[in-house]
Amino acid sequence: MPRYRITLEYDGGGFVGWQRQITGMSVQQALEEAILKLSGDTVRVWGAGRTDSGVHALAQVAHFDLAAPQPLKAIKDALNFHVRPHPVAVIHAVEAKPGFDARFSAIQRTYRYRILNRSAPAILDRGKVWFVRHPLDVAPMQEAASRLVGHHDFSSFRAIKCQANSPERTMDVLRVSQHGDEIWIEAEARSFLHNQIRIITGTLARVGDGAWTPDDVSAALAARHRAAAGPTAPPDGLYLTSVGYPDDA
Amino acid sequence: MPRYRITLEYDGGGFVGWQRQITGMSVQQALEEAILKLSGDTVRVWGAGRTDSGVHALAQVAHFDLAAPQPLKAIKDALNFHVRPHPVAVIHAVEAKPGFDARFSAIQRTYRYRILNRSAPAILDRGKVWFVRHPLDVAPMQEAASRLVGHHDFSSFRAIKCQANSPERTMDVLRVSQHGDEIWIEAEARSFLHNQIRIITGTLARVGDGAWTPDDVSAALAARHRAAAGPTAPPDGLYLTSVGYPDDA
Repeated sequence: MPRYRITLEYDGGGFVGWQRQITGMSVQQALEEAILKLSGDTVRVWGAGRTDSGVHALAQVAHFDLAAPQPLKAIKDALNFHVRPHPVAVIHAVEAKPGFDARFSAIQRTYRYRILNRSAPAILDRGKVWFVRHPLDVAPMQEAASRLVGHHDFSSFRAIKCQANSPERTMDVLRVSQHGDEIWIEAEARSFLHNQIRIITGTLARVGDGAWTPDDVSAALAARHRAAAGPTAPPDGLYLTSVGYPDDA
Repeated sequence: MPRYRITLEYDGGGFVGWQRQITGMSVQQALEEAILKLSGDTVRVWGAGRTDSGVHALAQVAHFDLAAPQPLKAIKDALNFHVRPHPVAVIHAVEAKPGFDARFSAIQRTYRYRILNRSAPAILDRGKVWFVRHPLDVAPMQEAASRLVGHHDFSSFRAIKCQANSPERTMDVLRVSQHGDEIWIEAEARSFLHNQIRIITGTLARVGDGAWTPDDVSAALAARHRAAAGPTAPPDGLYLTSVGYPDDA
């Protein structure tokens, strides 16, 4: 039974999120329906990151099994043809190595959060950035971000409904940088808690506008309960940008 | 009677173009209606570039006169408030210098054309790029572009309906460059003919896919009639990126 590994771009605004929901179209369902049209197989597609509604992907990774092998080019082009009404595309398709699992084999996930920081609202990037009107100061945001790097109990920075067994995670990278009128927050870890980056972003924005100091962020981390951190930033600005696996070069 | 100079970002997909049309909403009309709500003045807004339907702007420049002065911040914020249902925003507003005219004072216009060159269709940039599926070779496109730099009769590269008195223009810059899976064509001139950049782009794409050589582009230029050049590329990939004036630093 051949297994395929696909890399996906999608516009999260067009979906209820990665995972199947009865409330609307998910990325997972759109792909599974396209595969059914392509091969006649009723399959389950497994993704590396279960992104929430509104969260985008530049390079989500997923896998699925087919009953019979198909040429890779056919898989990519036919999937893109059948999935077309929905804002998702297969950027890349390869045959998966034995034992490959998009979710459980992943050893690194990278996300980018884009804040549009100017007085005029987003136009060309409407729905693709978080529009913050008041000026944010990047330097204290960078200092505050550095307090969250490393192995910590991130209970303050996870959604109440987060189902992970442990609130502990290792943040390998948390970088804040200015790009014209945008501020990017880039995070890299083996895995993340539910809403972790959006809560971190909402908290760092408080530091950027001067309401909080970097020490307040350290205190929020130490408090280990959700109410101690800042608000959850909207999904619009968040992108899953890459997923790493041990066998990749 | 105070005159204001505004810098605008807009999503051309939401308009019939810059100029008022009876067929739908133009950028000009959206702004004029917002100014009426702001000040009670029925004004005409004049733009530096009369972009076609679907063509975007990162920094269009326009001017208008008000009966009585208004604070600049009020102009920007109130215009953005009133214009909100439409995908256009005022990025910057200043009082214009005496004699300033957004269209006739301009001495330089810069456009960027974005081609998405990969096998998977555009998702996050749908409507914001021209999706070209077959691989384009940038090097011959660069060579062909160099043939169009300088002062020429661009009759082959203007729309049949172009109303400019002269087909002669001076192309100061025409640059082709690769940015990940995008190819950008950047053009700079005092002014352009109708559809000039889109016809140049359609022609350079023919060179990129090997159908034409750079010499064919030189021959098309020399022929001086529209049928000699390539097709008109779609508006989706085109952005007005800047307008220059003699008094600007």
